[in-house]
This record gives sequence, C-alpha cells and structure tokens, in this order.
Amino acid sequence: MDKLNPGPANLLSACDAREAIARGLLSSQDLVEACFARIDELEGSIGAWAHLDKAVAIEQAQAADDIRFRGKPMGALHGLPVGIKDIIDTADYPTERGTVLHQGRRPERDATLVSLLKEAGAIILGKTVSTEMAVYSPGKTRNPHNLEHTPGGSSSGSAAAVAAAMVPFAVGTQTNGSVIRPASYCGVYGFKPSFARISRHGVLTQSPPLDTIGVFSRTLEDLALIADVLMRFDAQDGAMTPVAPPCIGSFLTEEVPACPHFAFVRTPVWDQVEAITKDGFREIIEEVNQRQEKTIDILDLPPAFDELHEDHRKVMEADLARNFADEYSRGKDDLSVVLREMIERGQRVSDSDYDNAIARKGDYDALLQDILDEYDAILTPATPGPAPAGIDATGSPVMNTIWTFCGTPALNVPLLQTPEGLPFGVQVVGAKDDDARLFRTTRWLLDILND
Amino acid sequence: MDKLNPGPANLLSACDAREAIARGLLSSQDLVEACFARIDELEGSIGAWAHLDKAVAIEQAQAADDIRFRGKPMGALHGLPVGIKDIIDTADYPTERGTVLHQGRRPERDATLVSLLKEAGAIILGKTVSTEMAVYSPGKTRNPHNLEHTPGGSSSGSAAAVAAAMVPFAVGTQTNGSVIRPASYCGVYGFKPSFARISRHGVLTQSPPLDTIGVFSRTLEDLALIADVLMRFDAQDGAMTPVAPPCIGSFLTEEVPACPHFAFVRTPVWDQVEAITKDGFREIIEEVNQRQEKTIDILDLPPAFDELHEDHRKVMEADLARNFADEYSRGKDDLSVVLREMIERGQRVSDSDYDNAIARKGDYDALLQDILDEYDAILTPATPGPAPAGIDATGSPVMNTIWTFCGTPALNVPLLQTPEGLPFGVQVVGAKDDDARLFRTTRWLLDILND
Repeated sequence: MDKLNPGPANLLSACDAREAIARGLLSSQDLVEACFARIDELEGSIGAWAHLDKAVAIEQAQAADDIRFRGKPMGALHGLPVGIKDIIDTADYPTERGTVLHQGRRPERDATLVSLLKEAGAIILGKTVSTEMAVYSPGKTRNPHNLEHTPGGSSSGSAAAVAAAMVPFAVGTQTNGSVIRPASYCGVYGFKPSFARISRHGVLTQSPPLDTIGVFSRTLEDLALIADVLMRFDAQDGAMTPVAPPCIGSFLTEEVPACPHFAFVRTPVWDQVEAITKDGFREIIEEVNQRQEKTIDILDLPPAFDELHEDHRKVMEADLARNFADEYSRGKDDLSVVLREMIERGQRVSDSDYDNAIARKGDYDALLQDILDEYDAILTPATPGPAPAGIDATGSPVMNTIWTFCGTPALNVPLLQTPEGLPFGVQVVGAKDDDARLFRTTRWLLDILND
Repeated sequence: MDKLNPGPANLLSACDAREAIARGLLSSQDLVEACFARIDELEGSIGAWAHLDKAVAIEQAQAADDIRFRGKPMGALHGLPVGIKDIIDTADYPTERGTVLHQGRRPERDATLVSLLKEAGAIILGKTVSTEMAVYSPGKTRNPHNLEHTPGGSSSGSAAAVAAAMVPFAVGTQTNGSVIRPASYCGVYGFKPSFARISRHGVLTQSPPLDTIGVFSRTLEDLALIADVLMRFDAQDGAMTPVAPPCIGSFLTEEVPACPHFAFVRTPVWDQVEAITKDGFREIIEEVNQRQEKTIDILDLPPAFDELHEDHRKVMEADLARNFADEYSRGKDDLSVVLREMIERGQRVSDSDYDNAIARKGDYDALLQDILDEYDAILTPATPGPAPAGIDATGSPVMNTIWTFCGTPALNVPLLQTPEGLPFGVQVVGAKDDDARLFRTTRWLLDILND
C-alpha cells in the first residue's frame, strides 16, 4: 500500500484504512476529511445524515492521530469513522429518533455500543437518518443507486451512507427487517447478530424480545471487524448473558473443516418474492451446485411457520403500544398514520395473545435448530426484490421477520442486481449464537462464486 | 505438556492451565477440583476465603467444559478459577465486606469486573477475605509462608490464596497499599493498574479518587492475562474514559526498543525502611548495573513529596467518613477502633483542606511525570520489609501511598526474602496509563537478573 492521497481514502475498506493508519500512510484526520468531502458532494441528494458536526469528528480524529503519534495503545477501530443510527444515544450529537416528538433531544451519555466504539478508537462521524421511531415512516434518505428509489428502512441513513462511501461502516437496528432490508436495497453487507449479543443500553426500545443491533459495511471483513468490537456483554441490557466474544475476524480466515451445506429456504411468504429474485436464486444455486455438487438443497419450512409473521406482528405492535405510550399520549397527531395504527392495533393485543406468541417462539426455535443442525446455513432472499420506486415507503421486511423473531444471525450479501444496476441481496442465516461460523460459511460461499 | 494428573493442576500458572485446557489435556472441572483439594488441605490454617461454594464453582467449570466440548467460543480465561475479594459484589456468593455490619449481604448483581471475568470464561472460585471494609482491621487470614505473620491487607485473602496455590489468580483493591503490600508479604506478583482503568462499579466505595482494582498471580504473564480482561471501559465508573485497552499480554513479549533505565527512588519515608530491605536493594542495584552499566540511578524525590502522605490521609479519611457514614451511624460499636478513629478524623477534615489536598495531586503528578519522562520505571520497596510477626495488624502501606495518590501503575515483583524464607518485594512503578510498558520493562529486569 503506497502513500495515499487524502482524496480517495473514503473509498478504502475499513480494514485497509486501519492498516494504512497503523502504518502511518494515512491519518485519521485525512480519512475523516475525505469522508466529509464525499458527504459535501452527495449528501444534498442522498440525505443519509440526521446530524453532522465536522468540528467534533475532526477533533476526535486529531485525538486518535495524537494517540498514534505518542505510541499509546490503539484499539481495533483506531481512527476509523463510523455512522450511528439516530435512535442510538450519543453524548456528542443530538439523538432525535426520526420524529419531531424528540426534536432537540440531547442525551447526556453515550449508549454502551457507542462507548465500545470509542474505546476501540472509532470516530463517531455523525448520526444517520432513521425512519420515524425506527418503524416505517421514511426520513429524507434516498437510495444512492437510484435517487427515485427507497434506501429501505428503518436504518436508511446507515445503509445509504455506507453505500455512498461516505463512511466505511455504520450501526443500525432491526426489530423486523431494518438492517438486512436497507443493506439489500443499498447493495452493502449487513449483519444482524444473534439476539442479545450487542448491548441495547441507550438505544430506543421498540420491542425488547426483538430489538437487535446490526452493522453495515462494504466488505465481509469490515463487518467482522466492527462486530467483534460490539459483541460484548453489558449487564445493563437485561437480555444478555456473559458469554465469550465470538472473535469473528480470526474465525473468518480459517479454512472450513468440511464443505458447507446450505438449505435454500423459500419461507411461507414465497408468493411475495419477485420473479427477478427467484431467477437470481435459481442461477446462484445452479452455479454453486455445479462447482461443488449438492452444496445447496431446496427446502420448505414446516407448516408451523405459517403463523410466525402474525405472532411477530402481535409482539411487535403490543410492545410498540407499551414503549411508545408516552409519544402516543403527548403527540398522537405528530405520529405518522402508519405508526399510529400500529400502536392502536398493539393496544388491542391481549396479554394472553402476546404470551402465546412468545411461547410459540420456542417451537419455531426448535424447528429452525433442526434445520441448522443439518445445514451450515440457510440461504433465502434478503428482500422480495430490489428497492421499490418511490421514497414514501421503505419496502417490505417480510423476508426478515422469521430470523428476527427467532434471533438467528443473518447476513445480507450483495450478490444480485437488476439490469438497471439496482442491487439486492442474498440473505445467509446461521444457527443462533454461532455467528462466527456464519461468517466463515459465507466467506466460503463467496470464494466458490468467485472461483 | 503431557497429560496431567488432576492432582498438581493447582500448581500450574494460569497461562499453562489455559493452554492445557485449550489442548484438551486438562478439564476446568479437574482444575477446580485440584484447587479445592488444596483449599481442603490448607484453608484451616491459612483462612484465605470468606465464602466458598464448591457446587457453584464446579457447575461453572462444567459449563466451561461443555462450551469447549461443543466447540463454542472460549474467552481469554476459559475455565480458569479466580478468587474475588469480598468487597466486590457477586451474584453467586455473599459479599460481606469483612464486617459484621454487612453479614448476610447478598448482592443481586455481579460487579462489572466479575461480569468481565465471566465473559472471558473464568470460574469464580469464591470470595477472599478482606480486612474490615478494606481498611486495616484484619480478618482471619495468615501468611502462607509463616502462619504467625500477617499476610498484609486489605486484600489479605486474595494474596494468601494465590501464594498457597489455592487459585492461580485473584482480584483485590488498593486505596493505599492494599494490593502491593499483601503481594509483597505473600511473595506473589501484584499489579495495581493506572487509576480508573478497571471498573469499580459494584465494588465498595472507600475513596473515589484513590480506590483502584488490582490483581495477584504467581507469574508476570498471568498478571497480564487477567489484567487484559479487566482493563475495559465501563461508563458506570464515572472516573473512566473510553480509551483503548493496553494489550499487555502481547506487549510483554515484545523486545524493548532500547535498554531501560530505572530510577531507584528512596521516597520521603526512607527512614521507615528496614535494613534488610536496604541491603536487598543495594544488591539488586549492584547486580543489575554490573550486568548492564548505568541501568539504575539513585534518586530522591523533590521535597514537595514530603507532604503527600498527609494529603493522602486527609483525602482517604474524609472519604471514609462520607462513604462509611451509614455504617458509622448504625453500627459504630461494631467498627474496629482503628476504623472508627479514621472516620472520626475524617469527619474533621474541612472541605477546603480536602480540596487543597486534591489540588496538590496535580503538582505531584507533574513532578512524577518529569521523572518518568526520563526513566522507564521507578524501583522502590513494595513494603518497608517482610511481613511483621503477629496477625493483629496488616503492616504498613507507607511505601505504596505515593503511587496510589498519583494513580501510577505499580507492580510487586517477589524478588527478595529473609534467611528464614519470608518473601518481600521490589515495587516497579511506571508512567500513568503506560501499563503495558511497565510490564515489558519489568520483564526485561527479570531477564537481566536471571541471566
């Protein structure tokens, strides 16, 4: 790697930028300046950012450069900028949660995940646009691949900012399809880890059994790099238990012990999947099975899963009613119609319906576990198709609901695109709490396809 | 390393036990059983433990073995037992703080540092004896090298349990000399990191500007292993800032870039140092300087330091009065005379005296920094001499006060002993927040002495 001009530094992967910084070929300040130059160029049309404060970010970058200069310890993300979804508390920036109801909200403390990023040396570049309260009603963000299309949501700004090379990686959240869907539509890698492996302390609560932190980047290695920093126990997130970090980065470079097997799973909502997606998967399956016999089997989920989407809806909407009660009571008229209706449906979910839905989760988990005992990973579309035209909606999360409800780790791999160049993704799903293996298996799949 | 009998596993260093477990030569359960066999043998005479529950520890060990068996990620301390000073909250054991006033106290939650240990896979073997409220009045613990001598305090049980090979490492705390002193008297390695680098959330508060978590083990490498797990940012300890972990373990094995220079510092309390200690240091200095010319200079601290002990006393006693106000008001008669008198003296420290003492800390820090800009580390006795006879007092912390007040990292290195075999230590002090370099410099010193 030769001495870089500051110009194209924003195009570097996080891993490459990290190496360049460690070797003294690039300063964090130059990298951050390059990101801001890109933002200056494109933010007017894309609208990925809710809050930017160049002075704050540059100051953090200078502090990082000073740490390197003085030979002090450098964390895993030393000097690397990261975007943070605007429902995640930051002490350095407002956190307005995509709604006028929280306009001017300024948290006193960083969310735990923001502290972990800072401890690792990351520069908080700014806050990325969230849909209204991380539900459906879109913010200002447009799809970098076609400004007339949605970037997906609810982590719209995080996905778009990474896709537009404004920042090497970003953090989002998923309660239904809010990480994998925008990653698919924006053509970047997205990772929703196993449930309760990244702390939600200091993050807007939608639905405690579903809310999951996720990350975006332009390479699989970059996803591993940031995921390893974030996947740490925090007693302040009551769902977490102190288990060993997965060390995805080192696992990723290991050889697979045997050729992985994949289950191509059509899911009970296959009728909602577009023809272009079905064609794309047919081609991928043929290609892989041709290069390595019998790698991918085609599988249907047991009929029990037909009820899952309705169970997820009950849990999520009842929890929205509970957790957004304050917003509903003090500002019902400032909520979008779609969110208001979800809250109102949620208010009508009985406790026993909620409990039954949660109880069935155990059944789904067991059925999925059976499949993932037999197969290394599940392949399934990340979204029904590419990003729909229009920016008044964020597309359907229907391909993501099962994996969110069951808490299995899922990756979006940007493998497909329309003839017009709109990307969409292959979703790879692994066994719960086996996140590192999911990455290694996905690496193997990419290698086979690039062979 | 060949297949081990479970018998001597308690004698392994933590690093060796870790490797044996990772390679399948030793199970965590066998290691824990070996530690309990040693405890059964010696606890009656040494009294290092405040709370033991073999069933709880064995259950944790079996869970660790199961994680290895299933190929799940293993943390840095996977399956290794650790002792926890009884002023540090644990959900699995009582935390009675060495006083009848907290008899039966059972925390609901682990202290952050206990969570970090569990996340890394450590087995909480039990709670170690603390002096009364981690001040002076001794518990039941005796010095493993001579039962008629004090083990030092306040982390008496942690130091004695490690010295007696009941556990490979243990956690303690230091507000004056409570880690380095018992490490010196018990002949084990002890490490008090830079101030505010290990979370005190869930640990008894004595004096917020002074309280520091520390660790004990029988090798320098083991100290690094556990310190790397514990030195993580926690927003719940308001004194901490999110800086990169020091990665002491990997730094320790690096070559020094140049031969280190040491300042042998006599401190303003040199008149309290025993002749045997002075002789021991004279020999070490001669030996080192003979092998490597001009390695150790002899230095006196500037006269400003003459006031430091009194400043430390004011801060500590005023803080004890504040933080132990509840114990004082509800159970004054159950406090030891020494603690009651400290609290009462603390009540008489005026706010301005306290503030002036804290303000002078900045001056001391700057003067020390000047020395540590010129020298890689300071050498000074860890204690005035070996452990005094008698178990009704815990010896003097006078050699530790400066480094606690200034928040510089300090190591006890067990290099000296009396003709009768009572150990005492060399204290190596480094620049604040340069903990990894202190270890590397100390490694170099040990290598020179073993040459």
